[in-house]
Amino acid sequence: MTDIAKLGEFGLIHHLTDDLKVKNASTKYGVGDDCAVMHYPNTEVLVTTDMLMEGVHFDLTYIDLEHLGYKSAMVNISDIFAMNGTPRQMIVSIALSKRFAVEDMEQFYSGLRMACDKWNVDIVGGDTTSSYTGLAISITCIGECSEEQIVYRNGAKDTDLICVSGDLGAAYMGLQLLEREKSVYYQQVDEARKKNDKQALEALSNFQPDFAGKEYLLQRQLKPEARGDVLKQLRDLNIRPTSMMDISDGLSSELMHICEQSKCGCRIYEKNIPIDYQTAVMAEEMNMNVTTCALNGGEDYELLFTVPIGDHDKIERLEDVKLIGHITKSEFGKILVTRDNAEFELKAQGWNPLKD
Amino acid sequence: MTDIAKLGEFGLIHHLTDDLKVKNASTKYGVGDDCAVMHYPNTEVLVTTDMLMEGVHFDLTYIDLEHLGYKSAMVNISDIFAMNGTPRQMIVSIALSKRFAVEDMEQFYSGLRMACDKWNVDIVGGDTTSSYTGLAISITCIGECSEEQIVYRNGAKDTDLICVSGDLGAAYMGLQLLEREKSVYYQQVDEARKKNDKQALEALSNFQPDFAGKEYLLQRQLKPEARGDVLKQLRDLNIRPTSMMDISDGLSSELMHICEQSKCGCRIYEKNIPIDYQTAVMAEEMNMNVTTCALNGGEDYELLFTVPIGDHDKIERLEDVKLIGHITKSEFGKILVTRDNAEFELKAQGWNPLKD
Repeated sequence: MTDIAKLGEFGLIHHLTDDLKVKNASTKYGVGDDCAVMHYPNTEVLVTTDMLMEGVHFDLTYIDLEHLGYKSAMVNISDIFAMNGTPRQMIVSIALSKRFAVEDMEQFYSGLRMACDKWNVDIVGGDTTSSYTGLAISITCIGECSEEQIVYRNGAKDTDLICVSGDLGAAYMGLQLLEREKSVYYQQVDEARKKNDKQALEALSNFQPDFAGKEYLLQRQLKPEARGDVLKQLRDLNIRPTSMMDISDGLSSELMHICEQSKCGCRIYEKNIPIDYQTAVMAEEMNMNVTTCALNGGEDYELLFTVPIGDHDKIERLEDVKLIGHITKSEFGKILVTRDNAEFELKAQGWNPLKD
Repeated sequence: MTDIAKLGEFGLIHHLTDDLKVKNASTKYGVGDDCAVMHYPNTEVLVTTDMLMEGVHFDLTYIDLEHLGYKSAMVNISDIFAMNGTPRQMIVSIALSKRFAVEDMEQFYSGLRMACDKWNVDIVGGDTTSSYTGLAISITCIGECSEEQIVYRNGAKDTDLICVSGDLGAAYMGLQLLEREKSVYYQQVDEARKKNDKQALEALSNFQPDFAGKEYLLQRQLKPEARGDVLKQLRDLNIRPTSMMDISDGLSSELMHICEQSKCGCRIYEKNIPIDYQTAVMAEEMNMNVTTCALNGGEDYELLFTVPIGDHDKIERLEDVKLIGHITKSEFGKILVTRDNAEFELKAQGWNPLKD
């Protein structure tokens, strides 16, 4: 492994970004000056940012740096899609502690670049510095959208249909699975240590977590995909959402944002919430309510959007989009109708990084 | 003090950003959606970012959160000025550990807003999350500049004059001063503890560091100012720099960037490097070479720029800009001429966060 101190800050940046090729006409100047320079004469500029802290947002015992790079990039790209925009540039800041080597950063950048290549995004700058403790990542993504095409959270209207792409809760169940296997491993290590069983300890260095039949959950947690493909389908069918956001903190929390900003209520149906078979099996295994996982799980990075009721038939034609309910007047509240027709007020119990 | 968990992420953001007024026509939508939205039809968009980690970039034993907010904003604004641009928007990400309260964040935002108000910058978004360890700050600043007005690092030409604004080395000496007083304090605490001298320990809770006559050094370290005023003077005199950057890692390191990117050499004169009286006194007190401090100190946030030799008389008229040398052909190297006419090759010994 190569010590980062050998390269220094500028050497490391050079090493990681030297062969970047510019893909977008809006990118005028990338890495290497005080600022990156962009040109957006005919469209609105969209900017979003996300900060990821080791121990809070990721655990390097079960996500490798390549996946982490991919995921860090993808969640920002997802925010641009959530406005109906096209991602164009990315700025990447990392603070590293001494335990990371040049090869680790190569892995991280390899993941970053894979995600950026997938959506044609240019890496145009950033900051690389040191940290006394863990790894801290801050990514800013820049995109564009014509003024008429931007979709905010505040445009949902009474009778609009509520749609989600893909399925929900799988990323959360993937996290539960990873946490479970991690604790199984540490339990076995603890036991072997107590008995001073060196043979068992050695065997544990080859510990294989049990992920059989649960690959989809892992993939959703470790390699989320931003749903630019869904935007394209909507455009092709000439559907313009009235409100939209991506589901990062859980369906329930995001739907409440849309209702609050659009000053409306909503009525969604438990039976319509899209859930993958593996998610349901895993929830059963862990004695969890699968609907609660889908409502509050987070990290799905699917799109939640509303469309005028007139688009009903077009939406039905989309394979990977499900109608889960409709917008109501504000005074009817935010309601979940269960399978047995009971009604509950929705609560935002999504992931809140600043709660106890 | 108010526990941040009481407000939660969205409550805290709301509390801190609720009364922000939009100051720039280019700001179309700020805090509250997946992205901020901007409009730049006639100019280039400049984007820069900086990450600041507790323990590496700042020490909360001697910088309070209001100054930290001010400085974090100002160093990013400085990067926009370094391209000859006008700062317009700012995006602020913070990761907090549990020891911070709502009031701490109010302090931080108060400093941020003071810096942004000074240069008419809109705070348009960001991310607020938690950290297991210290405070991490990542700021992105967005600005604009017409294509013809942008100044890169790569335009310096043989015979161009090398100029710096303000004076150098004071921020570094301010840091030395703060470090010294901190270690004096801890020495006295240690001694009092060893002797179990409770009276002395109580007296130390009112410890007053000795900053008399050194206020300027502290101000330079704790409350740096981005030099937008110098840009205005240059414009008023119709001077367009051929290359420019801000001095954050030390004059020597920055000048080498300009020479490398412009494929040229330089010749600067020790006697012309602007140094404040307090900087010189403090260097003497600490047995340090003041020129070394000015060359390698960092955190000055002054502007380093080159102008065509024909602008010599105009530059001489500027009060707060000094000519320190001139650009040469690459083969003549990067030379410092000392007061006794000795010549040394410049070395970048500036602050490198990734060095041992």
